[in-house]
This record gives sequence, structure tokens and C-alpha cells, in this order.
Amino acid sequence: MNGKRATAFVPGHVTAFFSAHPAEDPAEAGSRGAGLTLSDGVDVTVDPVDDASAADDGLDALTLNGESASIGAVADVLSALGVRARVTLETDLPIGAGFGVSGAAALGTALAANAAADRGCSENELVTIAHGAEVERGTGLGDVVAQARGGLPVRVEPGAPGHGELDGIPAHARVEYVTFGELSTEDVLAGDTSTLSAAGEHALSRLRADPRLPTLMDASREFAERADLLVPEVAEAMDAVAAAGDPGHDDSVDRAGDGSGTGASMAMLGRTVFALGTDLSDAGYDPAVCHTHPAGARLIGEE
Amino acid sequence: MNGKRATAFVPGHVTAFFSAHPAEDPAEAGSRGAGLTLSDGVDVTVDPVDDASAADDGLDALTLNGESASIGAVADVLSALGVRARVTLETDLPIGAGFGVSGAAALGTALAANAAADRGCSENELVTIAHGAEVERGTGLGDVVAQARGGLPVRVEPGAPGHGELDGIPAHARVEYVTFGELSTEDVLAGDTSTLSAAGEHALSRLRADPRLPTLMDASREFAERADLLVPEVAEAMDAVAAAGDPGHDDSVDRAGDGSGTGASMAMLGRTVFALGTDLSDAGYDPAVCHTHPAGARLIGEE
Repeated sequence: MNGKRATAFVPGHVTAFFSAHPAEDPAEAGSRGAGLTLSDGVDVTVDPVDDASAADDGLDALTLNGESASIGAVADVLSALGVRARVTLETDLPIGAGFGVSGAAALGTALAANAAADRGCSENELVTIAHGAEVERGTGLGDVVAQARGGLPVRVEPGAPGHGELDGIPAHARVEYVTFGELSTEDVLAGDTSTLSAAGEHALSRLRADPRLPTLMDASREFAERADLLVPEVAEAMDAVAAAGDPGHDDSVDRAGDGSGTGASMAMLGRTVFALGTDLSDAGYDPAVCHTHPAGARLIGEE
Repeated sequence: MNGKRATAFVPGHVTAFFSAHPAEDPAEAGSRGAGLTLSDGVDVTVDPVDDASAADDGLDALTLNGESASIGAVADVLSALGVRARVTLETDLPIGAGFGVSGAAALGTALAANAAADRGCSENELVTIAHGAEVERGTGLGDVVAQARGGLPVRVEPGAPGHGELDGIPAHARVEYVTFGELSTEDVLAGDTSTLSAAGEHALSRLRADPRLPTLMDASREFAERADLLVPEVAEAMDAVAAAGDPGHDDSVDRAGDGSGTGASMAMLGRTVFALGTDLSDAGYDPAVCHTHPAGARLIGEE
């Protein structure tokens, strides 16, 4: 394998609400819902290695921010593309906290491995491979297709390209977030998702009738309560933001055009509270700050 | 109407090849084909005006690089959204030369007018409005959906979101171009397009079997010849690039990873030659230079 090194950037993705749609074929499985892609994301570098040196040196490996790690979906993507490689992930995003890092790792690996080993796949083919790997590993249902699109993706129909259907909220916003710890996506997705999915379908109907930022945030809060997913630290932060913004907190408006005043909600699925504009700062938190990302995952370098 | 001012950026779009697919419903009409979105694009600013002042001052108007202009699709988009506004277009792209300026104007107007007048449409709804306006005015068939997507869009099925289907070439490239003058899209699209469309379908089959830059450029050249669209100045430039790059010019390879060495072709439809990497410079031309654009059309400011 005489591949070159290639790097892809994949935006982070916060899911505001979702419904789960399992299916036999992983390309048909997925989720409906909506969220925000983030300028904070994951740089994924793929260095193809030849079989001999990999066997000798254990180079067929993955590092995440410099530490050895294992992500099943990444291994599956490499295997699907027939590429043996070192994969290096660098990110400022918290891990296991609802930012789609595993989806980003899978999608970035697909884009970078295709380029590095000159596999000649199209973008839809690469998204399908990464989406299928995430679904089969149970680590995500909708992050990959959202991260491939960018912006503020609305997953109208579940699944990979050719099956799923996407729309978007035509907006951009400053995004603030605070993470209190990890929450296992696998555990939630492996449990009974019927209540969650009914709440997600209701939230999607609301947003499609009014695809604007205040409705996105309000539908996300209602989803978190109906689906019984709120964790105490996040609920407390949501209350603090609501109290700081508007004691009645039933009058969500985007005061500054950057999303401010729309309140906070919980990233699905993570012990993470997020808000638009300056709502978390205004409530006295010291959040990480980024923006919605205008573009989907893209190759950023080859050498 | 108490709208604020809003601005959208829409990338330019060079079509490499296409087939025409007319239909009764403008959302179903469109084209198959492939091309490149460009970092050179159009900034579209929409300033809503109230009815009284518009009637008095003739403010319900459009300027293109500071000069008064008229673009039917822009008027139709404003009308569809029920917005009266001044529309200001600023672009470095040549006009009427195959860069999708009319599509960019329509799509940018849809995005900016929706934001300025807070119309609450989704991205797909706005793309559908702009695509329909372009199709009905006969000024384009595939630019709007390509410009909404960004990257190197492949139009697999024609039409607006919900009808059309897009894929992409997972690459980025430096793009060079030289324009020799205008060519009327309306005139070509109004004529017999059967030969053109057969050539376009053949080119698309080739590219889908090998979605890489060298095949995009080679399929574009073959399309230009088969569809009998080549204009003399462009043909001459294509020959010059081929001679400078490889006297045999049947061995297209991307030597530097930026598209160099893949030869030149004609922008559909314009008296414009374009090439990747440094192919036009290497042949002694003094081209305009930009890059493929990673993102689709986006709102960039509101005030």
C-alpha cells in the first residue's frame, strides 16, 4: 500500500432531539431529529501502513489527542475500504458528552482513508460506510449524516444517502456549552426507545412547522422532559439560564440575532448543557464557545 | 414590513457537463451533471423596504456591482416570499460566462430575504423557491441545487430537494479560469437539447464509475466535443493546456494533488476555459484563481 497521508475535518454535532429508527440494513437505520454542527470538531489524519510493518510494530492503531484509543466504527470503516492505517484524532471537544466524536471519527476516517489510499469512492459512498459502521456499533444513529451536511441539520427521514432525507434551519449562531461528564449513548439506544421516539417525533413536527432557532431550543427542552433524559446538573443549568433570561421563561425570542435569549437545553446524549448566543455566560457559567459550522465534513489536506 | 438587512454568500458554480430534464413542475425539472462550486461567489444583501417608500422612490430595485440591473429570478423569489426589498449583488465573477451568477442571485436572495423578513422557511423550501425561479426563467437548471450544497456536486437526479438527488466528489482543488465573453444559457436551453443530453448522460456514467478529478475533467472535455458546444477561443486554450502539460494528452493524472495535470475544459455555459491546479498558468495564460468551496450557500450577516 503506497498511500499518502490525508487529513479530514469533521464538525462536532449536538443533537437537540431525535427519534430512533432501527432497521435490518444499517443504511436504512438511523434517526429523525435536529441539531447543530459545530466549528469545534475533529481532525482525522490517516497514514496508510504496509502490512508487514503494521504486523511488526503494532502500527495499525488509533490515537485520540495523543493517547492510544479504540473506536470500533473507525476499525470497521478502514476494513470496509480495505485500508490498513494509523489514525490520529485531534479534538477540543469533550469525549462521550454528546458531541458526535465517534461519528466524526468514523466519517473523517472514511474521507481521509479514501483520499490516502485513492479508493475512488464518492462522498455518498463514504458517508454510507461511516453511517453504517456507527449504527452497527450502536454508538450513534444520526451524527454522521448531519456531520456530512453541516449547518443546522434537520433529519427528516432516517438513514444514509439514498435512504435518508435532510433539511436545514437557515441560520447561524454562537454556541456555548458546559459538560459535566459522560453518558453512554449505547446504553440509552439499547434500552426501550418508544417513549423517547414519540417525544422526538413530536419535537420534529414542531420544528418543521417553524424551522427557527427559538423553536429548535424549545422543542429540545420539551423533548428532554418528555423523554425523561434530563440529568440533574443539566436541568439545574437550564433552570439557571431560564431564570437569568426571563423569569417567566415561556417567551423565547432571539434578542440579538445570534440565538441569545432562546434558553439552554441538553445535548443528546451527554451530560452537557448547550445554549445559543451568550445565554450560559449571562447566567454566570464559564462555557466553551464555538459557532455553528457552515460546511459539512471535508478533506483538508493530503501530502 | 419591519425587516432588518441580511446578507448571504453563494459560491460560484462551474458546470463541467450536464443533461437537461424539463418537466411541468419546476421543482421536478432540472439537470443531471457535475461541476465545481467556487470560493469566488456572490454576496447578496437584501434590504426590505416598506410599500410606501418603494412606490415613491423606486427603491424596489436591484444593483449588480453598483449598477442597476434586472434578474427575473430574483424578482420571482422576492414575490414568492412576499418581500419587497432592495437587492444588492457584489461579485468578482464574470457575468454571463458560466459561473452561475443568476442562480447565486436567486438563491442568495431567498436566504437573505427569508432572514431579513423573518419568513420562517427551511433551507429546502428556500432552495426550492430559488431553483423554481431559475428554471421558469430559463436561466439555469442545476446551478441552484449545486450552490446550495457546495463542494464538487454531482447531480444524480434532477430537481429541487425532495425530487433531486446529489452526490459529491470528495476532493478540493485550486481552480483557474479565463473568460472570453458571454454566451446565452437561455438560447442553448431553448434549442434542441437531445444531443447535448445524451452526451451529458454518458459523461455522468463515466464520473459515477470513477468520481475523481481527472475523470471529471476528461468527461467534461468529451462532453464539450460530443455536445458541439466548444467555442473557438476555449478550444484553443484547451489545446494549449494539453500541449503544455503532455503532448500526448491522453494520460490525465493529478500530479500535485491539487488537480494539476488534469487539463482544461469549458464552463457550461460560457465562453470560459477552466482548469485545476496551475494548468492554465503553466500554459502561459494569466487566469483568475480561486478554489473549490467547501460549503453551500449560507447566511453571513444580519443587522
